[in-house]
Amino acid sequence: MRVDVYPTVLNIPPAEELAGRVAVVIDVLRATTTICTALANGADTVVPILTPEEAFRVAADNPDRQFLLGGERKAVLIPGFNHGNSPLEYTEARVKGRPILFTTTNGTRAIRRAAGADRVYIASLLNAPAVARELARLERDAAICCAGTHDQFSLEDSACAGAILEFLAGTGTPVETNDMGVVARNLFREYDGRLGDLLHLSEHGRNLLKLGLQEDLMFCAQLGTLTILPVFTEGQVVLPE
Amino acid sequence: MRVDVYPTVLNIPPAEELAGRVAVVIDVLRATTTICTALANGADTVVPILTPEEAFRVAADNPDRQFLLGGERKAVLIPGFNHGNSPLEYTEARVKGRPILFTTTNGTRAIRRAAGADRVYIASLLNAPAVARELARLERDAAICCAGTHDQFSLEDSACAGAILEFLAGTGTPVETNDMGVVARNLFREYDGRLGDLLHLSEHGRNLLKLGLQEDLMFCAQLGTLTILPVFTEGQVVLPE
Repeated sequence: MRVDVYPTVLNIPPAEELAGRVAVVIDVLRATTTICTALANGADTVVPILTPEEAFRVAADNPDRQFLLGGERKAVLIPGFNHGNSPLEYTEARVKGRPILFTTTNGTRAIRRAAGADRVYIASLLNAPAVARELARLERDAAICCAGTHDQFSLEDSACAGAILEFLAGTGTPVETNDMGVVARNLFREYDGRLGDLLHLSEHGRNLLKLGLQEDLMFCAQLGTLTILPVFTEGQVVLPE
Repeated sequence: MRVDVYPTVLNIPPAEELAGRVAVVIDVLRATTTICTALANGADTVVPILTPEEAFRVAADNPDRQFLLGGERKAVLIPGFNHGNSPLEYTEARVKGRPILFTTTNGTRAIRRAAGADRVYIASLLNAPAVARELARLERDAAICCAGTHDQFSLEDSACAGAILEFLAGTGTPVETNDMGVVARNLFREYDGRLGDLLHLSEHGRNLLKLGLQEDLMFCAQLGTLTILPVFTEGQVVLPE
């Protein structure tokens, strides 16, 4: 099978080139880590939304659904929203059984852009080994779509893509990859066991540190703490039955 | 100073974000290697052209200039052109004193896209150390713009960007870079002394090998054989007086 890695939203191929493949979307800091955490803590669904305005409109149009509003602009809480983009906010007490409208700068765009694939998984370091096992089980060509940061390559998303490739190889599945995949896998191998260091080194990580979000960094750097496989389907991220 | 690396044409920032910075454009396989070689062998100027049709039109409109036509589509010679995209074709006997209209798939787009910078240098592994010394001399923020291959990350362009960062650090100049720059520099360090191996491993290199172009690969993998500093200015690449 062939598993290609795309470094930023801009590099994700158009829908017609994703058709026939499985996609995996990654935004380690912090959108896909937060989505994985919210669903693991019992959230009913996470709906990626492009703009805060759209989120307010959807919530107003569907008062019966009691949506929570979550997300960020420039890494901070959006006025009028219930929660920001920190996975630590999405506790079971807050999210169990609730649907969430979620808007972030890079992650939401990446999920929407990957939607042309036959199936779209949401990955973070937390569930990277589980996603790799799923790809091995499916034996389908895959597109690992890194969100990146503001359309630029990011160390943390690339390392997560590399983790998936490394665990996939560990299952014994023969995998071909593209040049970005080669570099991503090398990057993960170099930082395996010290992913927290990598997140501290990354540009986005350093920006979060300036905002006092070191706990978020350490949380997002955890490898393989979850076995869930969130799927984006019909406009929302859910855990399949 | 700050030197950021952009992995593909798509990731090169818009003109307003390049203003105030120096740009360096890289397409190791093979556009910028060929441009450097042609100029080193005495070509008068190299004019990057987006399409073969435009090249034919410019040549027809300026018969007195006796343009040579060079370039490729899908790595092969364009019908009606004098030369392909192999640096080995651009010998002194063929190009000395001649202006060249040059069109390639990725390189030309990258050069045009970088044109918003204050000054645009053309780099390859051949002149990477010279370009690094020039950046150190200028002490200006810089944007290293990799062409990539069909809008995807390429190992060879990234390694060349990393070479420039490494030689720049070697001059003692303190340099900050972005996440892509960190990876590019690590990649160069890993393959320093065996860049031919890296080009053989790269997707684009393997495609050229299938076309029997191993000599091109070995030529493009040479590090620091030229000290020229080609500059893109007023629509053409020239060697400043």
